[in-house]
Amino acid sequence: MKELTIGIDIGGTNTKFGLVDREGHVHYQGNISTTEFEEFQAFFDAMAEAIRESLSNVPEDHKLVGIGVGAANGNYYKGTIERATNLKWKGVLPLAKMFTTEFHVPCILTNDANAAAVGEMIYGNAKGMKDFVMITLGTGLGSGFVTGGILLNGHHGIAGELGHTSVNPQGRYCNCGKRGCLETYVSATGIKRTVYKLLADHLEPSELRGISFEDLNTKMITEAADRGDIVAKEAFEYTGRILGMKLADTVVHTDPEAIFLFGGLAQAGHYIFKPTHYHMEQNLMPLFRGKVKILPSTMSNQAAPILGASSLVWDYLEKKEGSARLTSIQH
Amino acid sequence: MKELTIGIDIGGTNTKFGLVDREGHVHYQGNISTTEFEEFQAFFDAMAEAIRESLSNVPEDHKLVGIGVGAANGNYYKGTIERATNLKWKGVLPLAKMFTTEFHVPCILTNDANAAAVGEMIYGNAKGMKDFVMITLGTGLGSGFVTGGILLNGHHGIAGELGHTSVNPQGRYCNCGKRGCLETYVSATGIKRTVYKLLADHLEPSELRGISFEDLNTKMITEAADRGDIVAKEAFEYTGRILGMKLADTVVHTDPEAIFLFGGLAQAGHYIFKPTHYHMEQNLMPLFRGKVKILPSTMSNQAAPILGASSLVWDYLEKKEGSARLTSIQH
Repeated sequence: MKELTIGIDIGGTNTKFGLVDREGHVHYQGNISTTEFEEFQAFFDAMAEAIRESLSNVPEDHKLVGIGVGAANGNYYKGTIERATNLKWKGVLPLAKMFTTEFHVPCILTNDANAAAVGEMIYGNAKGMKDFVMITLGTGLGSGFVTGGILLNGHHGIAGELGHTSVNPQGRYCNCGKRGCLETYVSATGIKRTVYKLLADHLEPSELRGISFEDLNTKMITEAADRGDIVAKEAFEYTGRILGMKLADTVVHTDPEAIFLFGGLAQAGHYIFKPTHYHMEQNLMPLFRGKVKILPSTMSNQAAPILGASSLVWDYLEKKEGSARLTSIQH
Repeated sequence: MKELTIGIDIGGTNTKFGLVDREGHVHYQGNISTTEFEEFQAFFDAMAEAIRESLSNVPEDHKLVGIGVGAANGNYYKGTIERATNLKWKGVLPLAKMFTTEFHVPCILTNDANAAAVGEMIYGNAKGMKDFVMITLGTGLGSGFVTGGILLNGHHGIAGELGHTSVNPQGRYCNCGKRGCLETYVSATGIKRTVYKLLADHLEPSELRGISFEDLNTKMITEAADRGDIVAKEAFEYTGRILGMKLADTVVHTDPEAIFLFGGLAQAGHYIFKPTHYHMEQNLMPLFRGKVKILPSTMSNQAAPILGASSLVWDYLEKKEGSARLTSIQH
């Protein structure tokens, strides 16, 4: 009997899902539009239908043991998505309960950065680690903490919002309503803002002067740096300096073994890792120096969000001592 | 059969110890000098002798179930005190193992702020809380985190050094070798430095102008504020503003239910709590606002360090499922 989980990643535009085994092999992958459904119930019905169809192709000796969902503003305790700004459905959406009712298996739901952290622990380079931090660098900056081998959820289920720690109270405007939040400097959007600031302040020639803010992306900045563009290189240095400084604060909070960087900005390699590590060390008290690794996530591929979501189920089942394994797939 | 623990608080000058029951009643309290012993072994022998004597007065139906020790630089995982700057014995001191060998009971050792956190959970206002932060305000600023009902120790056993998060990289010199650490602003020493800075920068009359840096203490500043002294009041406002700003960063890390303040500065009451709470809220992203309480520790009395240390044992025994309760006292 082979056990399978379903991993679902609900993004602002698309919802991806896949059937995943314990080793992280994706047996089936599909997606539906997140935006085309005006009503949440209609979205759920379409999602359930797509899942049923994917399960109909699964061999008789496979069974579904759970559903994991990663979504912005996912609440682990309640299994709900609450007031997500990237979705059109308002209020509190009881998604985990709906999936459990429909498929008769446990459904574990959390925010996407937490799902990435558990994914790294179950399938990736954090295997065997009990204390680490996952930093996801996308449009914003997300984070997930594992301490003592357990996902840190906090009292209200919203722990790990490092993107909104303060770099400078008089700094850049943030979507959250504050100013100077970390993600306004360190994220795909943050480094674009830094490039534009550098272009505004300095006279140096740069190939990035020909690209609009809307068109600019991290890959272009990385490629410009590869060609020696001084503005692109300085933008990475500045981004890494701020990330390193703030990670030093994070290290003295939870004393992790490693910090993983995930997402487009992390794929810039040494341009971001080198200044981040240097400035983290510079800002640590001596007791902590030389102890904490900064590593690229091994989950950096297209299936990562699905794997992260599916890993929530394996993590749940492994921690639930003596849990009776659940309903077989109804063919 | 009544179970007792021994709580030991090793301070730079004195080592206090006491026999404590599960309800937090201190049955016996004693202390020995920390400084008069040149050799660590001699200190340990004197400590063991004092403990044996205290146990000889305990009724037959009481038994010792464990020893808890709070000490600066205590390592929870190893049961050692490592390179403590406030003690004259150098190197790594295997104290927990020595106590276990001597008294045939488990010995749990951690740093003093962690002991205070567990003390608050076992005996104080954090009873029933699973996610909270303890901030100890003494000469420096210590902290302990409980997440999911468990003391957060971190990978190297040194989590929770909030005193060395960064307020200003070009700021005040810190004992740790860095500049601008939180404890250079927020601690008994920090507020003294703030008073002196205010006296240097401003012309306002203040009764604190007549007191030397060495003589000045938090109680004097509090009493001056009570009499309307503008410098004293501004010093609290400034201290609370910095603490509140940094606690906002802490809140988005671990999402606690409450933050407890312990120690002399916390006894200044509304002078410190009001600005701290206000500026924490101002610096939080909306999702977290109005959710986290800042409370005075209920452990603020002479026996608190002993209670904190003893609580480590109750916490250990309660988490150790099916633990065989241990050796009876040998009369």
